[in-house]
Amino acid sequence: MVTPLLDRDNLDVAGLERLIEHILAGGVHGLFILGTTGEAPSLSYRLRNELIQRVCALVKGRIPVLVGITDTSFVESINISHKAEDAGAQAIVLAPPYYFPAGQSELLEYLDHLTRELPLPLFLYNMPSYTKLVFEPETIRAAAEYPGIVGIKDSSGNMVYFRRLQSLLKDHPDFSLLMGREELLAEVILLGGHGGICGGANLIPELYVELYNAACSKDLQKVEELHKKVMEFNAAVYHVGRYESSLLKGLKCALSCVGICSDFLAEPFHRFRRAEHEVIELYVKELGINPKK
Amino acid sequence: MVTPLLDRDNLDVAGLERLIEHILAGGVHGLFILGTTGEAPSLSYRLRNELIQRVCALVKGRIPVLVGITDTSFVESINISHKAEDAGAQAIVLAPPYYFPAGQSELLEYLDHLTRELPLPLFLYNMPSYTKLVFEPETIRAAAEYPGIVGIKDSSGNMVYFRRLQSLLKDHPDFSLLMGREELLAEVILLGGHGGICGGANLIPELYVELYNAACSKDLQKVEELHKKVMEFNAAVYHVGRYESSLLKGLKCALSCVGICSDFLAEPFHRFRRAEHEVIELYVKELGINPKK
Amino acid sequence: MVTPLLDRDNLDVAGLERLIEHILAGGVHGLFILGTTGEAPSLSYRLRNELIQRVCALVKGRIPVLVGITDTSFVESINISHKAEDAGAQAIVLAPPYYFPAGQSELLEYLDHLTRELPLPLFLYNMPSYTKLVFEPETIRAAAEYPGIVGIKDSSGNMVYFRRLQSLLKDHPDFSLLMGREELLAEVILLGGHGGICGGANLIPELYVELYNAACSKDLQKVEELHKKVMEFNAAVYHVGRYESSLLKGLKCALSCVGICSDFLAEPFHRFRRAEHEVIELYVKELGINPKK
Amino acid sequence: MVTPLLDRDNLDVAGLERLIEHILAGGVHGLFILGTTGEAPSLSYRLRNELIQRVCALVKGRIPVLVGITDTSFVESINISHKAEDAGAQAIVLAPPYYFPAGQSELLEYLDHLTRELPLPLFLYNMPSYTKLVFEPETIRAAAEYPGIVGIKDSSGNMVYFRRLQSLLKDHPDFSLLMGREELLAEVILLGGHGGICGGANLIPELYVELYNAACSKDLQKVEELHKKVMEFNAAVYHVGRYESSLLKGLKCALSCVGICSDFLAEPFHRFRRAEHEVIELYVKELGINPKK
Repeated sequence: MVTPLLDRDNLDVAGLERLIEHILAGGVHGLFILGTTGEAPSLSYRLRNELIQRVCALVKGRIPVLVGITDTSFVESINISHKAEDAGAQAIVLAPPYYFPAGQSELLEYLDHLTRELPLPLFLYNMPSYTKLVFEPETIRAAAEYPGIVGIKDSSGNMVYFRRLQSLLKDHPDFSLLMGREELLAEVILLGGHGGICGGANLIPELYVELYNAACSKDLQKVEELHKKVMEFNAAVYHVGRYESSLLKGLKCALSCVGICSDFLAEPFHRFRRAEHEVIELYVKELGINPKK
Repeated sequence: MVTPLLDRDNLDVAGLERLIEHILAGGVHGLFILGTTGEAPSLSYRLRNELIQRVCALVKGRIPVLVGITDTSFVESINISHKAEDAGAQAIVLAPPYYFPAGQSELLEYLDHLTRELPLPLFLYNMPSYTKLVFEPETIRAAAEYPGIVGIKDSSGNMVYFRRLQSLLKDHPDFSLLMGREELLAEVILLGGHGGICGGANLIPELYVELYNAACSKDLQKVEELHKKVMEFNAAVYHVGRYESSLLKGLKCALSCVGICSDFLAEPFHRFRRAEHEVIELYVKELGINPKK
Repeated sequence: MVTPLLDRDNLDVAGLERLIEHILAGGVHGLFILGTTGEAPSLSYRLRNELIQRVCALVKGRIPVLVGITDTSFVESINISHKAEDAGAQAIVLAPPYYFPAGQSELLEYLDHLTRELPLPLFLYNMPSYTKLVFEPETIRAAAEYPGIVGIKDSSGNMVYFRRLQSLLKDHPDFSLLMGREELLAEVILLGGHGGICGGANLIPELYVELYNAACSKDLQKVEELHKKVMEFNAAVYHVGRYESSLLKGLKCALSCVGICSDFLAEPFHRFRRAEHEVIELYVKELGINPKK
Repeated sequence: MVTPLLDRDNLDVAGLERLIEHILAGGVHGLFILGTTGEAPSLSYRLRNELIQRVCALVKGRIPVLVGITDTSFVESINISHKAEDAGAQAIVLAPPYYFPAGQSELLEYLDHLTRELPLPLFLYNMPSYTKLVFEPETIRAAAEYPGIVGIKDSSGNMVYFRRLQSLLKDHPDFSLLMGREELLAEVILLGGHGGICGGANLIPELYVELYNAACSKDLQKVEELHKKVMEFNAAVYHVGRYESSLLKGLKCALSCVGICSDFLAEPFHRFRRAEHEVIELYVKELGINPKK
């Protein structure tokens, strides 16, 4: 889930409520907040805590809430995990600490220490283009033995990595293998993966739910048709402008165009300016999204 | 300055006092806390604030204190900068926000926003091996026009970058060009740089002060002799063990061997274990350091 | 196809013949020589030319032969392409020139110049982990308009890249999208890709042919079963030893264990030594491969 | 030395003669051909051989000629080394083979094999931004024991690497440590390095010779003055245009502006077009270079 912001340290509270109801109406099975698309690293701890509380209060247990606790500071990760527990979240999500270049054995020891302190089940999160540290497949395999580590979200886009994980974890059928890139949701579910966390579900959640269902029921024709729609959405909304951040900017811009929430982004980013905004607006209107207000 | 720790969230208060007195006795001209060698990204905000207050109280204005405020969150950087001001620090130091891959124009806008909020003069900090984002020379050149940005600490080791900065900033003689790698202190001062921030000065501060002075007075023979000592120290203490973190581990280990402070490191690192400890201990004894206790 | 070698500049001629017959007996639809798995960059031009002639003579037109012409030198790429044409090859394959950091517009101009000189249809080859230069999706899209460029082999493993290519080239149904990583053959064919180039087909070609056929006929159950076999083979043969080159070493070792060809590798690599060899041997025996001798 | 070209496979023979006489008139102590600035990887082997022969014939033993033999193919490196010996060159220069990701132990074994076959003394060449493989300091230290390896040219710009090399090789005073970045020539000679290989010496060789001499005689004031001139030249000629290749393009453009040789560049590059050409021309005219014609 994106984090609707009025400015760099204030939530768009009305937008947040509209966004949550819009997503839940689409039938998703869970809500992941404070991930990369949620701009977590750019937000103050105060705001992150406020978001956790508001989201859990708004969701009211209708679906599980997963909370990102990735941090360079071990202690701050633990602190957020307790806020998540207190607010009633169901699980937490953690990418490697992304400042110091830790070795794999150090990462494994880090996870060992962490799981001893965590109050909630943990999903690992592989996001090497942003964290630069990778949980190598063998590290994940070893960590899967630690109590409380229940799965991984892989956003690398590297399917060789994902298939290698599946192969190494074939004797751990309960370890959830989730895909963090919506372009790859279809193939992941078709060939043994367990789910996906899709940024586009902020805007058109029902598309991803239908695709997931079609893939689970091995309806290849429907999968192809819906996968094509995902790729069209992707091409239209995520590739405007010249920076790597175009995904995040395009998504918030589109949400703003349909009246769900503000398109403000925290530093180091800024919302799309007029030229890019017009490109997104043109496309989004055709989608015919009508969020309840 | 390293951050003396008893455990991941508690300062080694007695060690901190010994360390500060040891460093100041060596004649350094300033103290930089909460940088990379200070493990800032690994520490909780509570502990960072405590450290700022204790250090400023112990230094009592004898030399300027510079405080690292690098953070992925704009708001948290501002928060720490106010703690630094309140405690009586003289300046702050900032590397690029190190999660999202911001473009150079975005980084410049980020600095523009930031300098409008900062209560103290700002040194930029180039540390690409850890932040992965670089302040490109042209970005630094543009940022040098912003009020409150007074210099840069370059820890890249890339002297072509440093010489390019000098070249671009030749009309800004007041913009301080500081070297963050002690192996390069000598050549920086000899050829127009302004100073250095040297991790080894935690242990043998007088060596770096003498080298700085010799370079300032263009005493090439003395520079060569002292530079050689820096390189011997470097080879002995920073290259034990197999990970990139060997500098930090070796330095804290050496400080512990001579009785200055604890060698505890916050996650994702851990102190040297016996084998590496013995290598460091053997060398450090020969240095004959006797901190006042 | 691997390049069977007696030493760094001599082909294992008998092994080459056995290897080709073994692969063709498996029913493959084409043979790609002088790629990464063929160690092309490590071979002398003399040997590359000899290989092209021998392979085309042995294959005798039974299936198309594709020849790698990747080179940092434009002229040498053209030279090899003419050797390929003379020998009767059907197409050529080219990754970006991998020394100088060319920009995308420079790569496009390079392809423009190249296609004017090439005597055979060209497949582009994306292999960023080795060439470090990427043909960006937009560059491929533009190059698809050049006469003679007929497809791409993507070995990045990055499925977001592959799906983006498909999306950009949806109006070019004749442009072949081939997968260079065998772990991803199944999902590529299931969702609109056109084929695969699989290193493992040197040893067990019929597995990949069957998987391809099952995926073409949308037989999901069979696809899953065969994909699982591919992953088992992969885990057993490609992940022995500690270097990235373990794929190439494991594959040549396995081919040697079953008596197909020598396991010699050209510098900068060397064949597996005893410990790794025994691991591969143990596994390969169970496969029950009996090449005709 | 740049390689003067009429087109992608023909030397500018007249320009080559002018260039060599211009460089030698400047008093340089050696001539390095077929390096990165010489576009070696972009040239055909035929042209490389022609260049070696012509250069050695034109230099006529007045100064040593060093020949780059870097190649992904071991056999081709050996082949060029024999051409160099036959033509009368004095030494050869080799960067790591730059396609396959070899490990350090593999690189060391590669050097072991290579030195057994080489007919001339060998300088190693560190150029990680282009080869992506580094000869790590410990690898260089070990290779320094092999017969025939006499030094290293470091073009990384990473002075921590260079100082570490010096430190590791302090007991090998005969092992030459050469700087490949002209911006760092001054500091290398001042603090114990042995020489420099400077691209700018194609155009203004006497500047670099004077700087080298001033640094050898520890004349700090003169060093500062000449170093400043190097940086001005650098800023004016190497930073035009937007790609990393601006150094090579700017240098060839400047040589063309003063009538020394053609500015043609082999693919994947092209010469500067009008806009950049005019910027370079304006600057170069002020230099007042008059090559003998």
